[in-house]
Amino acid sequence: MPVDPRFYRFGDPLTAGDIARRLGEKPAGDYSCTVTNISEPQEAGPNDLCFFDGKQRDWETFECRAGLCLVSNELDLGTHAPDNLIQTSVPRTSFFDLCHAWISEEAHKDTPPAIHASADVHETAFVSNGAAIGERTRIGPYAFIGPGVQIGRDCEISAHVSVRYALIGDRVRLQAGARIGEDGFGVVPTASGAMHVAHYGRAILQDGVSIGANSCVDRGLIQDTVVGENSKIDNLCHIGHNTIVGRNVLIAAYGGISGSVMIGDGVMMGGRVGIADHVSIGEGARLVADSGVMKDIPPGQTWAGSPAQPVLDWHRQTAWLAKQVRSRRG
Amino acid sequence: MPVDPRFYRFGDPLTAGDIARRLGEKPAGDYSCTVTNISEPQEAGPNDLCFFDGKQRDWETFECRAGLCLVSNELDLGTHAPDNLIQTSVPRTSFFDLCHAWISEEAHKDTPPAIHASADVHETAFVSNGAAIGERTRIGPYAFIGPGVQIGRDCEISAHVSVRYALIGDRVRLQAGARIGEDGFGVVPTASGAMHVAHYGRAILQDGVSIGANSCVDRGLIQDTVVGENSKIDNLCHIGHNTIVGRNVLIAAYGGISGSVMIGDGVMMGGRVGIADHVSIGEGARLVADSGVMKDIPPGQTWAGSPAQPVLDWHRQTAWLAKQVRSRRG
Amino acid sequence: MPVDPRFYRFGDPLTAGDIARRLGEKPAGDYSCTVTNISEPQEAGPNDLCFFDGKQRDWETFECRAGLCLVSNELDLGTHAPDNLIQTSVPRTSFFDLCHAWISEEAHKDTPPAIHASADVHETAFVSNGAAIGERTRIGPYAFIGPGVQIGRDCEISAHVSVRYALIGDRVRLQAGARIGEDGFGVVPTASGAMHVAHYGRAILQDGVSIGANSCVDRGLIQDTVVGENSKIDNLCHIGHNTIVGRNVLIAAYGGISGSVMIGDGVMMGGRVGIADHVSIGEGARLVADSGVMKDIPPGQTWAGSPAQPVLDWHRQTAWLAKQVRSRRG
Repeated sequence: MPVDPRFYRFGDPLTAGDIARRLGEKPAGDYSCTVTNISEPQEAGPNDLCFFDGKQRDWETFECRAGLCLVSNELDLGTHAPDNLIQTSVPRTSFFDLCHAWISEEAHKDTPPAIHASADVHETAFVSNGAAIGERTRIGPYAFIGPGVQIGRDCEISAHVSVRYALIGDRVRLQAGARIGEDGFGVVPTASGAMHVAHYGRAILQDGVSIGANSCVDRGLIQDTVVGENSKIDNLCHIGHNTIVGRNVLIAAYGGISGSVMIGDGVMMGGRVGIADHVSIGEGARLVADSGVMKDIPPGQTWAGSPAQPVLDWHRQTAWLAKQVRSRRG
Repeated sequence: MPVDPRFYRFGDPLTAGDIARRLGEKPAGDYSCTVTNISEPQEAGPNDLCFFDGKQRDWETFECRAGLCLVSNELDLGTHAPDNLIQTSVPRTSFFDLCHAWISEEAHKDTPPAIHASADVHETAFVSNGAAIGERTRIGPYAFIGPGVQIGRDCEISAHVSVRYALIGDRVRLQAGARIGEDGFGVVPTASGAMHVAHYGRAILQDGVSIGANSCVDRGLIQDTVVGENSKIDNLCHIGHNTIVGRNVLIAAYGGISGSVMIGDGVMMGGRVGIADHVSIGEGARLVADSGVMKDIPPGQTWAGSPAQPVLDWHRQTAWLAKQVRSRRG
Repeated sequence: MPVDPRFYRFGDPLTAGDIARRLGEKPAGDYSCTVTNISEPQEAGPNDLCFFDGKQRDWETFECRAGLCLVSNELDLGTHAPDNLIQTSVPRTSFFDLCHAWISEEAHKDTPPAIHASADVHETAFVSNGAAIGERTRIGPYAFIGPGVQIGRDCEISAHVSVRYALIGDRVRLQAGARIGEDGFGVVPTASGAMHVAHYGRAILQDGVSIGANSCVDRGLIQDTVVGENSKIDNLCHIGHNTIVGRNVLIAAYGGISGSVMIGDGVMMGGRVGIADHVSIGEGARLVADSGVMKDIPPGQTWAGSPAQPVLDWHRQTAWLAKQVRSRRG
């Protein structure tokens, strides 16, 4: 999916020739091919620039439909038609370098915010240009609603909340100090060490979502971060970039979900559960408080412990261990 | 204890008949019985509406003095005088549905805040109507003090703090971004999934309390959340709704106390200690950093680990386990 | 190192006689010796007041160059020249009592902030007197920049950030709700229980540092808290007072570093890692997610678990334990 023009503005279209010149590389194919947006590789279309930094074996099964794709010069291109490729040393870094120069925030200079007459915006709150606030929605003291942000009906946005690069459904509750749409924790290697990368995705909170006080939902890198309908998230939680939280999910305090995690519908998480990057939690699974989840969990199962394991194994292990020690105590 | 009228305003008194009609039920007893407030069942008086969602065996020993009590229609009422009861399918949900329609925030429209002449309120801070700020208290930049909030003398309220539905003693320190009095994490089941419930309690911080940066003290559901005299709470801590923290308690960073917990006087908690719902920690107990407490802890004991156990057992277990593995290493 | 006059203002110089009188003690040596600032004992010079609350054996190897040092009256002074000493019962408490009366915030009343013409300060942000904002730096909505704070070039300060008692380098990114320079979690014993102590140090963020949303970097007690060049810290992290984080360190979400910790260059920490007070983490060490570190870790090693141990031991232990339980399952 290309980037949302409500939040990000692109400079002039880039040709393969332009990009190759900036990178000091040469395109494998057509110099005149032109891109106007960016995308994740899986979802890129003919007008999009993307990058591929997977392994050779992923490459072989990868069908790239992007207008232009940056790939590692260590990759054996094999039978891929090279027309839309530029090889370079670190595609991810090159890609974000290009983005930094090419993409800026959409300022919405000439579009005042559209605040419904029935909305109640506290006198100290700030709603930016291009933002829209729906019927009966309340915006609390010192809340900041960023440019282009869309907020639905009957929402409660509490004090000191910040919302940027986000689309918010109806009946959403954001408690005080919630941070919606900040950059994720993404770095790329450069000659001078790790460099923070700008994020071009969005944070999507569907209808009926609650986010607790001082919790953070980062926006996606290029894709979106999504919290599904009616999911309830407690205080001081963290939802990383590109993570998809399903519907009717409950996450208690300090739930920490890393980036690119998939959480199925109806999952219930006790307090202080951590989930590693790229892990998938099946529908209806339950995670006991204090779990540290390092791998995928099948639907409907209950897991516990760190590293997390099925809850019965965890109980058995905990009990067995206590017994061993007790029997040696005397 | 009924709800504090400084924070919540009730609509017209409700009769048993009104309530039964709204729920599509019929009262077991007197249709004309009238309530003007709400309460937890244990503390309800003759003017209060409450709900009971305990088990049959709890019911049998429960003495309800409420004006009106919603109870499950699966309950065998037994020998209870039915005069003050309405049976319904999910009392908790019905109760909060009624409350949502009946209770609103007290707006204090005609009562400007009472700020002592010696108080120092930053030019960017906002003190709402009906609030009171004591002598020499400092209110920092962008702090928000909600309607009806009372703050004592010699307090330091730092930048971006929000305080709502709260009573704050003397010499209290709230560091930047602390969130006092937000809703707790309470949901009730409805036909369309979990529904967030509004909270009608308060957050009480007694004299000499410190709350660290970005920490959260949720207000109670109907009762209060209380932090006792001189207790010191570090950054990024979470105190759940209805929890009572005693006096002279020390809680290091990331201390996460769930709802309805009792923490005795003089308890000391290392960093990142979690405590489950409804647990009791005895006076003077100590919890080692990283403990996950799932059950009550007697006074004066030191516990560690997750799930937490007495610290000597935990040391023994840790050491024994290390030895087992070491002896198999070679 | 004495305290930075950009942030703290001292009353009139104090003589040993003044101090002894206030404490109800008598100086061991010269009554006319004068101090104008405070310092940690190791770094104190001839104009500084400090306190020593170490043990007798530490005292014997301690060379105090302070103008005046408060020491316990239980200490055997031995061969130390007593000229610069005052003995008292609880030196730490007496020291901070004196400081509270002697030191106040520097108000910079007559120095408007120095904001570079190319800086972009949001209309709702507040930059205090005596602060300086460098070229092209952006200050977001409702951000608060405290008196005397220095911020370099090309920084991005997001919404609702507070920065106090801090020096910030170039290219620093502070995400929404970050808290820089609040008091640490320090208490001293008094007759009426634990008393919060004011902090007189600074928070230093070097060039290229990123701090995530709602993360906290406390300022030092007297020394500084430092985050080194190019280190990247995720959301909801906590860096305690007096802690030194090296260069190119990566700390994932919920990284919780207690006070007076040393973290070497290039250390990488997974999510939810906790580190106890006064621990040292060697250069290039790696800490697996969920580690709880209670002791020093040598350079280059990878540790895991809580309490943390070398990662291979942890894997071995985890696997062995799982096997024991599995073999007993059937």
